[in-house]
Amino acid sequence: MPDPTTDPSISSFIEVDSGSDFPIQNLPYGVFRPGSADIPRVGVAIGDQVLDLAACQDAGLFDHEALQSNMPFHQPTLNPLMGLGNKIWSMVRERVHGLLRADTPDLRDDADLQERVLFDRSSVDLMMPVDVGDYTDFYSSREHATNIGTMFRGPENALKPNWLHLPVGYHGRASSIIPSGQPVRRPKGQLKPDEDQPPVYGASQLLDFELEVGALTGPGNNLGSRIDIDEAGDHVFGLVLVNDWSARDIQKWEYVPLGPFLGKSFATTISPWVVPMAALEPFRVDGPEQDPEPLPYLQQSGPQNFDVELRVGLQTEQMDAPHTICETNFNYMYWSVAQQVAHHTVNGCNLRPGDMLASGTISGPTEDSYGSMLELSWRGERPLEMPSGETRSFLQDGDTVVMSGHASGDGYRVGFGTAEGRVLPAQ
Amino acid sequence: MPDPTTDPSISSFIEVDSGSDFPIQNLPYGVFRPGSADIPRVGVAIGDQVLDLAACQDAGLFDHEALQSNMPFHQPTLNPLMGLGNKIWSMVRERVHGLLRADTPDLRDDADLQERVLFDRSSVDLMMPVDVGDYTDFYSSREHATNIGTMFRGPENALKPNWLHLPVGYHGRASSIIPSGQPVRRPKGQLKPDEDQPPVYGASQLLDFELEVGALTGPGNNLGSRIDIDEAGDHVFGLVLVNDWSARDIQKWEYVPLGPFLGKSFATTISPWVVPMAALEPFRVDGPEQDPEPLPYLQQSGPQNFDVELRVGLQTEQMDAPHTICETNFNYMYWSVAQQVAHHTVNGCNLRPGDMLASGTISGPTEDSYGSMLELSWRGERPLEMPSGETRSFLQDGDTVVMSGHASGDGYRVGFGTAEGRVLPAQ
Repeated sequence: MPDPTTDPSISSFIEVDSGSDFPIQNLPYGVFRPGSADIPRVGVAIGDQVLDLAACQDAGLFDHEALQSNMPFHQPTLNPLMGLGNKIWSMVRERVHGLLRADTPDLRDDADLQERVLFDRSSVDLMMPVDVGDYTDFYSSREHATNIGTMFRGPENALKPNWLHLPVGYHGRASSIIPSGQPVRRPKGQLKPDEDQPPVYGASQLLDFELEVGALTGPGNNLGSRIDIDEAGDHVFGLVLVNDWSARDIQKWEYVPLGPFLGKSFATTISPWVVPMAALEPFRVDGPEQDPEPLPYLQQSGPQNFDVELRVGLQTEQMDAPHTICETNFNYMYWSVAQQVAHHTVNGCNLRPGDMLASGTISGPTEDSYGSMLELSWRGERPLEMPSGETRSFLQDGDTVVMSGHASGDGYRVGFGTAEGRVLPAQ
Repeated sequence: MPDPTTDPSISSFIEVDSGSDFPIQNLPYGVFRPGSADIPRVGVAIGDQVLDLAACQDAGLFDHEALQSNMPFHQPTLNPLMGLGNKIWSMVRERVHGLLRADTPDLRDDADLQERVLFDRSSVDLMMPVDVGDYTDFYSSREHATNIGTMFRGPENALKPNWLHLPVGYHGRASSIIPSGQPVRRPKGQLKPDEDQPPVYGASQLLDFELEVGALTGPGNNLGSRIDIDEAGDHVFGLVLVNDWSARDIQKWEYVPLGPFLGKSFATTISPWVVPMAALEPFRVDGPEQDPEPLPYLQQSGPQNFDVELRVGLQTEQMDAPHTICETNFNYMYWSVAQQVAHHTVNGCNLRPGDMLASGTISGPTEDSYGSMLELSWRGERPLEMPSGETRSFLQDGDTVVMSGHASGDGYRVGFGTAEGRVLPAQ
């Protein structure tokens, strides 16, 4: 049975521009306040509006027992909803779809109700959608890993021996995950600008972004159990855009042998709207061929990648609008989200509602599809030329990075909004 | 003015054996339930008893405004208390000390009150004392880093160039931190037993413990600000014992270049009683001399290490009691907790109440002072002989690891209780 919630022929009574990220086929979740004095609650973006699910429930539009007892919409994060699992997610999505479609009268014809449950998206305060318990950062783009490896070890030694056998990943810092729009302070730390001299203390000179996509997990597993790859989909609630800001000079000096730490932990920006996996179902595609064949616990059936076009815009203080410096696609990922979930839990590690599994920097095969300044400028050897006449090898104070992404459907797009952040000078 | 709470001449009306970990000079915090049907609340260990701080507050014994408005004792974790800061911690400690000392009658002479607020420690359920938001694992024992480096890279190349300049650390997994007593399932994962063959999937054959001490943080800092090394003490609530269980074969194959991941994330055990920093003040000692001199932001004044004797016992299924296989001391740490806090926040990374900064494996200079099986058995080249006639290079199913520690005062000791765990066979 085709899923009506992704049916391109069904439209909403709310007018949605064909270029909007948020048509009725998307229905992403976020947390917002109608006014700054209001209590945060869960909402769904539709066109230029937000549907207030807490107000909908107050109006008696959600009578399911699990929702009555858990009240997941009257919450400051999506975590409780994420904990309820796939069946409840589907039910909520179908109900929201039913309320918003053009051919059902319940909300369409009730101006009083609309007044209570719909808000202009531009007028609300968007909050952090999730309280990330643990943030894992993978390294799953072959092109990115190859680029970085080539720069630091040469092309013949670019990929480490484990890379093609497992999705390499590490634990990131959860406390410094911030919502889109919050500025990012240039970090200070230990740098080693001169190889032959001792390290110095100062502001990072090699500030970078990393274009990533983050998967937010659903119920998860108990410690000591694992999630089979064929069940991984039941434990992924949705996706967000991620900017894993990186200070390359801090990172380079600190990271041997235990991995990135302060070079990353000063900020990680996520987009405010969580795109449900159900909305991305029509955009499933096969990922790159995997050779050598992965071990059985990592073997997946059917297409597990997603065709999501991704873009990075950079705007300096002299510019009026972001200039696109990277166009790539989430479908380049060598290791899929399903493989990441299966690998993450194969040792019995427990995932919890609201954990984030980020993809790692997403780079494509061409020079304009690299997902970081480090790669785009090739360590500064090929500075980027901006329309203002400026050049950039790494980020300067006042620069704004704008990440966006969408899957292209037939006459509509399932978009992610933006993950934005401006660089403030070091303190 | 000397701190009365650590005065060795003051005793409690509750009889405390001189070998007890929990005299009136300690007063560690935990979370417990008097019975399994009760609601968790905050308590303080005293001898063989637990003082129920929630019941004390209900009885009107804590009338401070900050405690009345925050109710930090009627909580399932210590996080709210940790968030209140140093002044409140001191006030609570002084009040608890005042209630328990032998020369004050309020609790001593009130049998009804005692009935309500004191419980046999052996009869209560101890819970996880803290909800760890972010878990950072440092690598701050020079002896440990040298041992590991020597094994894998040879003695002349043992310490990486950054090690003497900064406290190397990485992000650990918070979800799999468990309380003492909870068994640990042997993890499965990718192993590479034969260097020349592809990896295989199976149960870890090189299961290990790591003896560490964890610092639990207090109020912490806002993102973008930092904690000066001289103020670090205001942001550390107390210490626990940590067993950072490690699967050496999984770790070895996965960890390049981004650090440990699944080789650690299956379990980390902590002791249930959090020893307040105030109780450890009398045991401050100078750490090892630091050469080269650290950068100014890492320079500390006065003794910042702590003289805490640490011990690991191993009990196989054939044994009746743990056999001591490691005796070491927290004062061997090259990098202090204060330096770790200053370094962690130098880039603006925010610490939150309840974050854990673990020391990394604590090894001393002698072969019986190494804090892991990997070092004690030197990669299995020198198997440990157990009193049962068995040998151990790494942990076997059914083995129990018991970590303990205490600082030795004049006629009393400030102890940590134990962090224990038994190894269950792989699933």
